[in-house]
Amino acid sequence: MSALPPGSTIGILGGGQLGRMLANAAAELGLDVAIYTPEQDSPASRVAAHTIVGDYRDQAKLTAFAKRVDVVTSEFENVPAETAAALIAAGVRVAPNPQALAVAQDRLEEKTFFNANGIATAPFAEVNSQADLEAALGKIGAPAILKTRRMGYDGQGQARIMSAAGAAGAFDRIGARPAILEGFCKFEREVSIIGARGASAATAFYDICENEHAGGILSRTKLPAAVSAVTADEAQRAAFLIMEQLDYVGVLTIEFFVMANGALIANEMAPRVHNSGHWTIEGAATSQFEQHIRAIAGWPLGATAQLAEVEMINLIGADVEHWRTYALDEDAHLHLYGKRDIRPGRKMGHVTRLRR
Amino acid sequence: MSALPPGSTIGILGGGQLGRMLANAAAELGLDVAIYTPEQDSPASRVAAHTIVGDYRDQAKLTAFAKRVDVVTSEFENVPAETAAALIAAGVRVAPNPQALAVAQDRLEEKTFFNANGIATAPFAEVNSQADLEAALGKIGAPAILKTRRMGYDGQGQARIMSAAGAAGAFDRIGARPAILEGFCKFEREVSIIGARGASAATAFYDICENEHAGGILSRTKLPAAVSAVTADEAQRAAFLIMEQLDYVGVLTIEFFVMANGALIANEMAPRVHNSGHWTIEGAATSQFEQHIRAIAGWPLGATAQLAEVEMINLIGADVEHWRTYALDEDAHLHLYGKRDIRPGRKMGHVTRLRR
Repeated sequence: MSALPPGSTIGILGGGQLGRMLANAAAELGLDVAIYTPEQDSPASRVAAHTIVGDYRDQAKLTAFAKRVDVVTSEFENVPAETAAALIAAGVRVAPNPQALAVAQDRLEEKTFFNANGIATAPFAEVNSQADLEAALGKIGAPAILKTRRMGYDGQGQARIMSAAGAAGAFDRIGARPAILEGFCKFEREVSIIGARGASAATAFYDICENEHAGGILSRTKLPAAVSAVTADEAQRAAFLIMEQLDYVGVLTIEFFVMANGALIANEMAPRVHNSGHWTIEGAATSQFEQHIRAIAGWPLGATAQLAEVEMINLIGADVEHWRTYALDEDAHLHLYGKRDIRPGRKMGHVTRLRR
Repeated sequence: MSALPPGSTIGILGGGQLGRMLANAAAELGLDVAIYTPEQDSPASRVAAHTIVGDYRDQAKLTAFAKRVDVVTSEFENVPAETAAALIAAGVRVAPNPQALAVAQDRLEEKTFFNANGIATAPFAEVNSQADLEAALGKIGAPAILKTRRMGYDGQGQARIMSAAGAAGAFDRIGARPAILEGFCKFEREVSIIGARGASAATAFYDICENEHAGGILSRTKLPAAVSAVTADEAQRAAFLIMEQLDYVGVLTIEFFVMANGALIANEMAPRVHNSGHWTIEGAATSQFEQHIRAIAGWPLGATAQLAEVEMINLIGADVEHWRTYALDEDAHLHLYGKRDIRPGRKMGHVTRLRR
C-alpha cells in the first residue's frame, strides 16, 4: 500500500488515554484524527478533529465513521468481531487486522497461539464449569489462577486459587463465564517487549522493559531491564514471530514473566500501544504512539533507539492529586490524561524520568 | 495566583501551527483547549476540545469564549487591543498581558522600549509621510529599510532603500501606512533568545539559537549558536529585563543581530512561542510549548536544559512535498502542521535533527 499523505484521517476506536496520545502523535505528523467511542466527552475526543459517539455494535454509525477515515485502529483489544467486520464491510482498512484482535482478546486462543509458535506459557486449561475447574486443578495443581477468557484487564475477572479446597465456588466468583486456569509462575521479574511492523513488513523493536505491578495494575516500568541479552533477544524473536504469523501492522506488546534461569513465559499480548511503552515519549527516538501511527498509515517505521536510562511511574487514582509535586520536579515529565473523575484503580496519568 | 488544575481550559487566540503545538502541549498536561479563530477548519482547532470561529472584533463571541476558558493566550502578537480588552472585560485573564502585546505589535514602540531599557537597536526614525522618509534617510543614511509599524511579519510590508534616490515612492509602496525607517546592520549572524516568566515571576531561558532566513522567512535554526558566552549572557539579560518591565507571563522571544565584535542589536520581540524555538520539542527538557502553557497556567516552569546539538529546518511551501524523504530519515523528527493548501512562503512543517 502507498503511504497515507498528510491530511488523511486516522480513525481510532476508543476514547481513553491511549487514543489521546495516539491522536497527539498523529497530529504532529499532519494527520487528522476521528475517534469512535461510546463515551461522551472522552479524553481522546478532546484532542481529535472528529468524534462519533456510538455503541460498538451500531452498524449505521460505524459505517459513517468508516466513510470519514482512511484507516481504523484501536486503543483496546476487546473490539467486538462484528465491529471490525462492519468497518471492513464499509470499505475501510483495519490495522492491526481482526485476526490479531481475535487472538488477543481471548486468553485461551492467545496462549494456544503462543504455544503453537514455540513460545512458552504457564500451563493452562480451558474451564467452562466448576467441574472443569476441578479437573484442571488436578492437572495443573495449586496455586493457580482462574481468569475469564475475555474482557479481563488490570486484574479484573480473576480469582487466585491457593489450594484445591479454595476452588469451591471460584467459577461462580468470576461470573461463571468461559475461563482458563493458569498455573502459577514463580517468576523473578516481569518484562515486556514492544515491537512494530509496518505495512511493508519491516519490523522495529524497542529495548525490553521491566515492569512492576500493584494490585494487578502496572505501577512502574524501567529500563534497562535486569535481564541478559539472550533473554532480551528471545523476547524480540517472539514478538517478531507473532507479528509475522498475524501479518501484523502496528505496535504490538507482549508481556512475559522471567524465570530464575532467564527463561521467558509469555503472559499476554496487546495488539496496540501499551502502558509499559509510555517511556518512549521522551526516552526513545520515536514514541510508540508515533510508531503505531506510522505503521498503520503505511509510513516507514521510525528509529527506536533508547536515549537514556528511564523510569515511568503510573499515577493511579488519587496519585494524581500529587500533580503539583510532579510539576515542580524538574526531572519529571508529567503526563495527565484529562479524565474528569478520580476513581480507585483508574489510570489518571504517568510520570517519566530520564537519567541522561 | 494559584495554578490552574488539570481539567481547566486554556483559551488560544489563533488557529495556526503555534496554536496547534500549544494545544498538544496543554493536552499532555491534562488541560483542555479552546481555540478562537476567524478560520474554518484551522490546524489548531483540529486538536482542540472547543473552537469558536469568529472575528477578533466580535464582542459577543469573545465574551462567550471568555466564559468557557480559564486563561487566554495568543499564538500571534497582532491581537487587536479591543480583543484583549473585551476578554478582560468579560472576566478572563490574558497572558501575556495587553501591554506586552501592544509593545510587540508596533515596531516604533518596540524599538523605543528596547532603547529605554538599555537594549541597543539599529538607528530608527518614525515615518508618516514621504517627507518624513526623506528626512529620516538624511539622518540615518542609506541603505536602510522602511517597515510598516504594524502587522508586518516574515518580510511583509517592507521596502529596502539602497540609496537616497531609491526612496522615491517608497512610502506609497508599503501602503502609505505609519512606518519606521531602520538603519541597515552589517551583522554577522542572527540569533534569538527564548525565555519564560511564570506567574510567580520565576524565569527560565533556553540556550541562545542561531537563525538563518531566506526571503525574510526563517529557514534554519541551529544550536549551539556561534557566539561567545558574553553575547549569550547579554541576550538573556535583555530578555530578563523586558519580561520584568512588562510583568510578563509566558514565553517571550527576542531576535537579535550579532555584530562582528559580538555586540547585540535587538531586531524584534515576539510575545509568544516562536519558530526559532521549535527545536525545543525534542532538543530541550521542556518544550517551549509546554513552558508557555505552564507559565500562563500558573504552574512552575519546566527545565530548559538543551539535550543535544540540534538543527531545525522549516518546510516552506513546496518543501513539504518531500515529507516522504523526511519520514524515511531515521535522524529526522518530522512535524507537519495540517495545513490543507500549499502556498509559496507558507510554513507547512519543520524537521528537527539532534546530534547526541
